[in-house]
Amino acid sequence: MFRKILIANRGEIALRVLRACRELGIKAVVAYSEADRDSLPVRLSDEAVCIGPAPAGRSYNNIPAIISAAIVTGCDALHPGYGFLAESPSLAEICRECNLTFIGPSPDVIAQMGNKATARAMMRKAGLPIIPGVEEPVHDTTAAREVAKRIGYPVLIKAVAGGGGRGMRIAQDERELIRVFPVAQSEAQAAFGNGAVYIERYLEEPRHVEVQVLADHHGHVVALGERDCSLQRRYQKLVEESPAPNLSNKVRENLAKAAVKAAKAIGYTNAGTFEFLVDKDGRFYFTEANSRIQVEHPVTEMVTGIDLVQWQIRVAAGEELDFSQRDVRLRGHAIEVRITAEHPDHDFQPSCGEITGLVLPGGPGIRVDSHLYPGYVVPPYYDSLLAKVIAWAPTRDEAITRLRRALAETVIGGVDTTTGFHLRLLDDPAFRAGQISTRFVQQFLARSGPMTASFEL
Amino acid sequence: MFRKILIANRGEIALRVLRACRELGIKAVVAYSEADRDSLPVRLSDEAVCIGPAPAGRSYNNIPAIISAAIVTGCDALHPGYGFLAESPSLAEICRECNLTFIGPSPDVIAQMGNKATARAMMRKAGLPIIPGVEEPVHDTTAAREVAKRIGYPVLIKAVAGGGGRGMRIAQDERELIRVFPVAQSEAQAAFGNGAVYIERYLEEPRHVEVQVLADHHGHVVALGERDCSLQRRYQKLVEESPAPNLSNKVRENLAKAAVKAAKAIGYTNAGTFEFLVDKDGRFYFTEANSRIQVEHPVTEMVTGIDLVQWQIRVAAGEELDFSQRDVRLRGHAIEVRITAEHPDHDFQPSCGEITGLVLPGGPGIRVDSHLYPGYVVPPYYDSLLAKVIAWAPTRDEAITRLRRALAETVIGGVDTTTGFHLRLLDDPAFRAGQISTRFVQQFLARSGPMTASFEL
Repeated sequence: MFRKILIANRGEIALRVLRACRELGIKAVVAYSEADRDSLPVRLSDEAVCIGPAPAGRSYNNIPAIISAAIVTGCDALHPGYGFLAESPSLAEICRECNLTFIGPSPDVIAQMGNKATARAMMRKAGLPIIPGVEEPVHDTTAAREVAKRIGYPVLIKAVAGGGGRGMRIAQDERELIRVFPVAQSEAQAAFGNGAVYIERYLEEPRHVEVQVLADHHGHVVALGERDCSLQRRYQKLVEESPAPNLSNKVRENLAKAAVKAAKAIGYTNAGTFEFLVDKDGRFYFTEANSRIQVEHPVTEMVTGIDLVQWQIRVAAGEELDFSQRDVRLRGHAIEVRITAEHPDHDFQPSCGEITGLVLPGGPGIRVDSHLYPGYVVPPYYDSLLAKVIAWAPTRDEAITRLRRALAETVIGGVDTTTGFHLRLLDDPAFRAGQISTRFVQQFLARSGPMTASFEL
Repeated sequence: MFRKILIANRGEIALRVLRACRELGIKAVVAYSEADRDSLPVRLSDEAVCIGPAPAGRSYNNIPAIISAAIVTGCDALHPGYGFLAESPSLAEICRECNLTFIGPSPDVIAQMGNKATARAMMRKAGLPIIPGVEEPVHDTTAAREVAKRIGYPVLIKAVAGGGGRGMRIAQDERELIRVFPVAQSEAQAAFGNGAVYIERYLEEPRHVEVQVLADHHGHVVALGERDCSLQRRYQKLVEESPAPNLSNKVRENLAKAAVKAAKAIGYTNAGTFEFLVDKDGRFYFTEANSRIQVEHPVTEMVTGIDLVQWQIRVAAGEELDFSQRDVRLRGHAIEVRITAEHPDHDFQPSCGEITGLVLPGGPGIRVDSHLYPGYVVPPYYDSLLAKVIAWAPTRDEAITRLRRALAETVIGGVDTTTGFHLRLLDDPAFRAGQISTRFVQQFLARSGPMTASFEL
């Protein structure tokens, strides 16, 4: 086992990794930026090392600073958390050259999964379903009609160089395609200086369902159930749950099998996530793989009883998984909300400042992962996550009710938070019924009034 | 289901009951003393009602004030929590007369279990083993020799009117009995003005193991595993865990069966606990029954996934248990420590004052039940419980390690606490090995140095 691990991250995930190290009896060094000098992980650590000033480019994203910190403090392994350099093949590669174990998959796998086109091609080769369409550009309306006919309507026309919805058009039938295809091309040209577009099957209201896998260096891969993360705003997940609601056991099993097959096909090791879009009929399509621990991992931990971060470390140290797929039994339902320092009534504008009047929730079935303490000053440089509140209960409905209860007793003073937004969302009848898709939050925001929480201590 | 419940208690258990009401969608009224006006349950409640000043005799133990509060606020049920009037047959009886449902067993059962001699007699009749001995006084050494011979050495001579160890003597054999019997008699006479003594089998280093039962009004009784609560100081439990370590499955099953049999024999309803002393050979003896929810109930909730306080309410409202004994499956191990405002280095002298610098632990497997918030002033009138920290993990060893991790990150400033004591205790090799008995804490304190926690934020 490792002697000492460098935690190359901040906030709640640095604390999460520190907790795992403590529980495994491994010394941990927290690498921190000047802006995080007074953070809880630094205060709770046995040893901490400053790696430079904010912003992240000069500290958390600065590979030489991080590698030096690990070497100077005598670490033999490095945990990257999520975000920052967690999916940097360069960091993983340099760690290897410096005899530091990078706690994650191999640099090759990280690189392959980091390139979404490569990842899709590899997964198709491994036999996973991907969204029908072409990766090659479609040059004119005649070709577009042929492609669309082959993959079936409705279709989505997307800019090759695109992002943020520009150069994107939906066509429900051939008539519409003929009308919008040139529009999409000119929009793409205007927005990106590149008019190339491609076409794929349009999923009406798909769900984002991801499968957690854990793989050791001895050929064992297990799937630890799935998570529904459909509730997103601008591709930022807001609420995650496990198991995914309203999914047949058959689909559930097939998702797990697909993820295990994919992980085996690419020689995946450590913890990873395979993401799928699931349509209304339960058909699913691989979209991407994440070669890191994810923000939403606690819901999986609560239903499986398995500590993912401890296993990341144990697997990286060469340990064999001491359980098999048959031993994995999901119990009850877990649901997480991310409380962020953002103002839901002002387009989720970020907030920062000193935390006053802090009361985090507790009691049965509640887990809180947060780096807040009274008097902590939320710095302006980083993502706005303040706390993850996770509720477990025997059923989804009870878990939601419990989470609602927990949020109603949560007080985070001094900054704007999304607690009120979550309270409203958890009460929404469509959400309660599990009628969710990646478009849900947008629709919910459109039909809802102000979200500010009224309770203050 | 009830419309509105009066919570006739304070501190963490008032908050616990409030949480259960919230999760069941039932309105709750928190009854509070003037000293608890600023307490967290009062602040979080929808409705609160003052029932008088401290001390408890004028508020929490004042039946007319409590009943009036329930009637005035339109409650149709009352939850007594633990302590105060939780085991008062009078309160349960008066509730019945006032058409208020008392959330607990019937007044008769409370009264029977409240009288320890009656309870023992009823349990013996129901076929439960009780400690061999006589309830009748033994008048002279000749009679004492006969009794001791029958029940077997070592024996304990106890004052009938006794308590606190006075008039109590152990005899390992007949020679010792002849010597100490008259001493015990004169001690009893001197201490209590009553020289009557009785004799019972002396258990060398017994363990305190209790079985949680839940019984509805439809004849269903289930046992929800057992808890080991051997770690006590002056009969005050400090650490509790479930399942009990180092107990054979056979003993475990027999304990559960005995508790269910006992509950059925006396027509027990609602949540209750049957306490046993277990000797080194796994023989167990009924000692008493507690007709209330107990401080240590969270460890059972964590291993069974069953919400005991919700079920107390549901059963009291006439609901049928929706699971049977076969459905009860224990998962992993849970262990709780009670952090109290006491100074372990000064004979656990109680402390009070304003809470400053509060950081309660979180992360995987940790549950916190606490009524503290930053700036809360711990009043001097009540018991010294500040927080219950409970850790769950797949195994006992991991649960202890996790709990240790959680305590090491706990900061409760402004009052003396027992956190340092617990940190030391969790590291103790004998405790780790599960070599525990009701004498453990006394022995541990004798061999240990100062306990004050060194970490401060």
